[in-house]
Amino acid sequence: MQSMPISSSSTGDERLRRLEEVIIAEIPLSARMGVSVAALTNAGLRLSMPLELNRNPHQTAFAGSLNALCTLAGWGMAHLLLAEHDLEGQTVLRRSSIKYREPVESPRETATCGPPPPGDLDHFLAMLRSKEQAKLELGVQIAGADADRPAVLFGGSYVVSRA
Amino acid sequence: MQSMPISSSSTGDERLRRLEEVIIAEIPLSARMGVSVAALTNAGLRLSMPLELNRNPHQTAFAGSLNALCTLAGWGMAHLLLAEHDLEGQTVLRRSSIKYREPVESPRETATCGPPPPGDLDHFLAMLRSKEQAKLELGVQIAGADADRPAVLFGGSYVVSRA
Repeated sequence: MQSMPISSSSTGDERLRRLEEVIIAEIPLSARMGVSVAALTNAGLRLSMPLELNRNPHQTAFAGSLNALCTLAGWGMAHLLLAEHDLEGQTVLRRSSIKYREPVESPRETATCGPPPPGDLDHFLAMLRSKEQAKLELGVQIAGADADRPAVLFGGSYVVSRA
Repeated sequence: MQSMPISSSSTGDERLRRLEEVIIAEIPLSARMGVSVAALTNAGLRLSMPLELNRNPHQTAFAGSLNALCTLAGWGMAHLLLAEHDLEGQTVLRRSSIKYREPVESPRETATCGPPPPGDLDHFLAMLRSKEQAKLELGVQIAGADADRPAVLFGGSYVVSRA
């Protein structure tokens, strides 16, 4: 039987409030970027940040901030997956690539990390349980002006080690 | 004749002081990361930031901060190259990839953007003068505990449009 990636949540989900507390407390830059954990839906985990704290010389979002928001969204997804499956571990980003297709300039930027495909998740969980370490490939998108076309595409290869 | 990539500088170089002012004024996150423009040598443009403002849950540098520092180092190199060749333009990052080979945990992290190879620079300058827009591929490294082995490797594809 395939593992469920993650159960979606209602507004005010306690898991999301705790995840935001962890991110803000343990990665101080996230507070200075104004990052918040916005929602968890079937589409994935959504984080957001205000443009005002993250602008560049063109008054659009700074590429470094967008990358950091995607990095955090993937990290947060790994954090929720571990909790969902009663596992404890440390998650680090091993490599990533990002494509900035369009400038991002809404007052609040949102990054959504999709859940891993169920087959990938099963493999990840089996490796983590047997080898104490496993790789998790996650994709994150940042919304643009056109809802059907993400402005930013990010792919990250995370490594989780059991605590 | 091939263009000189960029002339190296002495400590207190006025160009570096001005570049730091531009970065801090136009990209507010850089001030909150504690970014400073450290040096310009034959190895390239060096930026630095303190670990304290950029730590992660493991008390090493946050991947998002390291990526942002590399992004700024490449942006700064493009800025200096334009000034060196009496050109004005706007520089944006189109895509990048990064590999985090080792945790980075010195009290101050440094990212060095190497100059483009002279042949690439000639092509970039010719394209920018004739087409008003040109791509610039830049590589940035973040130093690790072992001086011979960078802890982080970043490659960025920047697009410069003439102002």
